[in-house]
Amino acid sequence: GRGCRAPSPAGWEQARCSASTRLTWSICTPRVINAEKSEFNEDQAACCQISIRRREPGLEEDEEWLILCSTQFLTGYYWALFDGHGGPEAAIIASNYLHYCIKQKLEEVVGGITETRPPMHLSGRCVCDSDPQFVEEKHIQAEDLVVGVLENAFQECDEVIGQEMEATNQTGGCTALAALYFQGKLYVANAGDSRAILVLKDDVVPMTCEFTPETERQRIQHLAFLFPKLLDGEFTRFEFPRRLKGDDVGQKVLYRDYFMEGWGYKTVEKADLKYPLVHGHGKQARLLGTLAVSRGLGDHQLKVIDTNIEVKPFLSCIPKVNVFDFAQHDIKEDDVLVMATDGLWDVLCNKEVAHVVRSFLAENRTDPHRFSELAKCLVCRARGKKRGHQWMLDDSCEASYDDISVFVIPLHKRDED
Amino acid sequence: GRGCRAPSPAGWEQARCSASTRLTWSICTPRVINAEKSEFNEDQAACCQISIRRREPGLEEDEEWLILCSTQFLTGYYWALFDGHGGPEAAIIASNYLHYCIKQKLEEVVGGITETRPPMHLSGRCVCDSDPQFVEEKHIQAEDLVVGVLENAFQECDEVIGQEMEATNQTGGCTALAALYFQGKLYVANAGDSRAILVLKDDVVPMTCEFTPETERQRIQHLAFLFPKLLDGEFTRFEFPRRLKGDDVGQKVLYRDYFMEGWGYKTVEKADLKYPLVHGHGKQARLLGTLAVSRGLGDHQLKVIDTNIEVKPFLSCIPKVNVFDFAQHDIKEDDVLVMATDGLWDVLCNKEVAHVVRSFLAENRTDPHRFSELAKCLVCRARGKKRGHQWMLDDSCEASYDDISVFVIPLHKRDED
Repeated sequence: GRGCRAPSPAGWEQARCSASTRLTWSICTPRVINAEKSEFNEDQAACCQISIRRREPGLEEDEEWLILCSTQFLTGYYWALFDGHGGPEAAIIASNYLHYCIKQKLEEVVGGITETRPPMHLSGRCVCDSDPQFVEEKHIQAEDLVVGVLENAFQECDEVIGQEMEATNQTGGCTALAALYFQGKLYVANAGDSRAILVLKDDVVPMTCEFTPETERQRIQHLAFLFPKLLDGEFTRFEFPRRLKGDDVGQKVLYRDYFMEGWGYKTVEKADLKYPLVHGHGKQARLLGTLAVSRGLGDHQLKVIDTNIEVKPFLSCIPKVNVFDFAQHDIKEDDVLVMATDGLWDVLCNKEVAHVVRSFLAENRTDPHRFSELAKCLVCRARGKKRGHQWMLDDSCEASYDDISVFVIPLHKRDED
Repeated sequence: GRGCRAPSPAGWEQARCSASTRLTWSICTPRVINAEKSEFNEDQAACCQISIRRREPGLEEDEEWLILCSTQFLTGYYWALFDGHGGPEAAIIASNYLHYCIKQKLEEVVGGITETRPPMHLSGRCVCDSDPQFVEEKHIQAEDLVVGVLENAFQECDEVIGQEMEATNQTGGCTALAALYFQGKLYVANAGDSRAILVLKDDVVPMTCEFTPETERQRIQHLAFLFPKLLDGEFTRFEFPRRLKGDDVGQKVLYRDYFMEGWGYKTVEKADLKYPLVHGHGKQARLLGTLAVSRGLGDHQLKVIDTNIEVKPFLSCIPKVNVFDFAQHDIKEDDVLVMATDGLWDVLCNKEVAHVVRSFLAENRTDPHRFSELAKCLVCRARGKKRGHQWMLDDSCEASYDDISVFVIPLHKRDED
């Protein structure tokens, strides 16, 4: 996000990362660094250890004192990036609150993960002997509970942001990318256009996909089809290859409706001249002419400029969660998770990032801060060099003018404290 | 589908395939064969050559006489399977009409495919010199127009079925699987639980995915979340691992809502005891306790038994279209497309079918009817053998009691007339 507010000091900065010193993942020294091209920064970051109390099954809420007495803990590790827009407030609240939501929700389900007799069978075995036809094999695993935790935590965090922003009369929203290492698996939850990839010795594994007005066109158009009033007669839900003009009326034009992955022809009518609900391509794609992302937190008050049309109904706060099981992979010493906001990925593709990661780590074998130095190096590459008034990449392409935040998280020896 | 009506003769039968004798795809001798276990058969099939007249660009509808004078033709080849339920009528109408819809829609867009200056740019070049910022590169290709044709043709066919069934006071619906070979590419459009795979020399390529209440749970639950009245207070939109009972109230239970791929815990309330919108697993999964598929044609009048709850709002008639470009593959002599209704795939997996295909064709090199014999062979395998009152597979598993229809379509030398 580009910004107003929240000025940050010049030069490199370890951004809001309140819990990083508490991290016991020994060799993990992630850094979040901002390109500092603009005076202001809307990216926010968080990382911390999440301690989960093991609740006794069957305990009611009012028996919380028993929980507090519990001495058993499970530990998770958490990293997150939030790219704010329309001000940094939503990103700040999210960076302070999302890990708390995750911790709470994990404690609610941890019985189902650790107990031998969870509240309802995770094993698929028959639990209703008198009525076996009602019991089905759903293959539900502990992993599915953690995925559910992340989905519910994002939704709760979005609600809190809505209340907080309304109470303090603030506006804005943010994307959210969160990684959770828990019980030998890495969960990556993404709502927005940030990205996380695993750079392994012989492989690059994408852990997220981007949610933009373009990638979610059909969901957005379908909602407008179901609730036409959401467009208030100001937008058309059809997609066209370009904005139509008055003299196109009566001509045949390519179009797509909500149910189409392919294209068709229609004869242009006057209503087709309205601004399209989803318009533009790539980084220029916009929802209602307003937002460049289709998922994220906040934006509860956001309206299309000079109208009463709300954007929030078209936004989703639900992340897509991808899981990586370390038990099924032989993790090597220089294998890392790279998380970054769109400022990095706009100018460097996965392959280029993987190349930088591998060559940097090969050339810097002994530096105890090699992973945070690598994060800096990646930001440097995307930030480019100033030539006159322009920032340029090495290959003379224009550099990223967006905020750039990067985590590089080593995956080897991750359970050593 | 299992059936009432539409009795078919005993033994093997080349089913409704009105246009097969007109096929000029020389070595192509597809057969549709029914298992004949039950007295009645709801599967329907169609295959034909589709001749597309090339319309002059800019011609209006009332200049149709000019089109009729046109002597230029493009040719497509079409195969389709329809698995009826609640009677064969919808499947019969679809088998008579879908290829006509496709032909009509193809003629509407064929200008965009063949003309050097199509109605609006397919090339992505700027067509609006006065306003270049409105022109975007969408990478729209001729292929995307054919995909759009199939999507729109399924929708139109569904409307026609609705009108026809209402006019004749009939009920029922059907799944639809259609393959179209056109301009060097194979398009496979699927709405339902039939399946098509390419069995190539060194590879098996799935060309469809199944649409069932289970695979489309989130879409279906989301609709119920947006329009709760569709459930009329009789169903719960939540998914549970098993049907809940009175004494579960107050207990913790695993559940999923529309936005969840993972699972969470909730405390069972009385409302959770209602029958679930999507219930059951695998072949037992049902939408509103009524239908085993979530996409298809027809079912406009279908209501949940003893209620006024309509099923149609939760159904989609839109196919997912997958494209296979022959130009990018070296097609070998025994490479085939296998299309079949769920009766086959319920008892044979892709790998088993591929094994039967390869060994049968290797052992039958010279038989001019080897492909239709192979289709018969596949049906035989899924149909099993009668032992007492049961039909059994070779490995003593129970055989398919459903109708079984199979097309085996050779892909080599496909353009020879």
